[in-house]
Amino acid sequence: MSNILIVFAHPEPKSLTRQLVDLAAETLEAQGHKVAFSDLYAMKWNPVYGPDDFPNQLDPERLNFVAESGHAYRSHTQPPEVLAEQEKIIAADALILQFPLWWFSMPAIMKGWIDRVWAYGLAYGYKGAGNRYRYGEGGFSGRRALISVTTGGPAIDYAPRGINGPLEELLFPLTHGSLFFPGMDVLPLHAIYGTGHITAEEVSAAKEAYRDRLLHLFEETPISYRAQNGGDYPNRHTLADTVAPELTGINAHIAV
Amino acid sequence: MSNILIVFAHPEPKSLTRQLVDLAAETLEAQGHKVAFSDLYAMKWNPVYGPDDFPNQLDPERLNFVAESGHAYRSHTQPPEVLAEQEKIIAADALILQFPLWWFSMPAIMKGWIDRVWAYGLAYGYKGAGNRYRYGEGGFSGRRALISVTTGGPAIDYAPRGINGPLEELLFPLTHGSLFFPGMDVLPLHAIYGTGHITAEEVSAAKEAYRDRLLHLFEETPISYRAQNGGDYPNRHTLADTVAPELTGINAHIAV
Repeated sequence: MSNILIVFAHPEPKSLTRQLVDLAAETLEAQGHKVAFSDLYAMKWNPVYGPDDFPNQLDPERLNFVAESGHAYRSHTQPPEVLAEQEKIIAADALILQFPLWWFSMPAIMKGWIDRVWAYGLAYGYKGAGNRYRYGEGGFSGRRALISVTTGGPAIDYAPRGINGPLEELLFPLTHGSLFFPGMDVLPLHAIYGTGHITAEEVSAAKEAYRDRLLHLFEETPISYRAQNGGDYPNRHTLADTVAPELTGINAHIAV
Repeated sequence: MSNILIVFAHPEPKSLTRQLVDLAAETLEAQGHKVAFSDLYAMKWNPVYGPDDFPNQLDPERLNFVAESGHAYRSHTQPPEVLAEQEKIIAADALILQFPLWWFSMPAIMKGWIDRVWAYGLAYGYKGAGNRYRYGEGGFSGRRALISVTTGGPAIDYAPRGINGPLEELLFPLTHGSLFFPGMDVLPLHAIYGTGHITAEEVSAAKEAYRDRLLHLFEETPISYRAQNGGDYPNRHTLADTVAPELTGINAHIAV
């Protein structure tokens, strides 16, 4: 039995997003897992990170987010709704983020869930040690993460030479930069494309495929992102000259 | 004389973000330009796209964002604050987005400015014609866009083989997917790195460099993203086999 947290962002109960959340919960619970939810719209989650996040501001003269994030985390003065989300993640063995792709990224309400919940000392600056533990080690290590995303546009637009760019590259700031950074094992994306013109039969098939995938949530092999402290980044900043010497850019950070 | 809209996301008046906004305004106004602002925190901009954006919902039984966005835009029933932002963009010859990089993307308040303001019929589905006019042609064509971003982490982390990935690739969903998509000419990023440990002298030098760049805002050559209707995408979805045949991924969409 494992604990799974599903965080999702869609206000419409009949949306495909919500249908996929329900399907995931049913499938995982039928396996004996325990499922918790963060229904960001229903919670009226406030995505705007700002002064209200720091009721006990260290420097009232000038708001520095990093400094105040660390201070609030260390001094246990974070807003209760932020602490509650952190506790839900800590209690989870797996995190599922379910959202529709808006402008090639998350809806703002989910971006602001990360902005506010990913505190200094926990999700970055782990143990107050700056960048010592990022990318593969951190406050969320030992957990796996699955992005389950729907796109209005067709799969061809996200093909290796598709006009939008491949979804894996577009979401790298999330998978690598936000989930792997604090230590999560990130699974390959689960995408349902073309929801702008999808038939009932296609929805059924897509659900079946998602269900099959969820049955193996804890057996899947995560994306092989290179860990900062695994030897590929001797100076903790750049790849060693001997590692994939022919590559530059985001894809150089995936071991092959 | 040109019109420039500066949209920015930081609540702290003493922040580097706000200093750069002030510098840009002074510099551009001294050249005879007219500068307008969207101070998202001061405006208490609501970044959560939802039912309140559609007071005259086409289908009250099920909220479909794309359908309702198009309906609200066509029927002139968008919320007044959304319409006001669209009018500010339309009135502008150049748009500057100034923000601190949070989790390798925009702060949620700015993501939700795009989510809500980029309406169907205007920023996508231009002229109600689906994907006919995207990437290089659309409701915001004839305008240039500059991303001016600050990062807490050092430049080395964003180098071609830096552990975060290059900033140009991380922000591709914004530059290509959100600004070039509705037709803007996107200038190369302006980034100030390492603001987590920056000296007063370095701030001065960074401001001088930004000022120099702003003096040539309307002379700079935009990023050479390939236009959907420029011949490189005969089927409007994927690159022709003859175009950069050795490339896949997001960088294939930049002409060299």
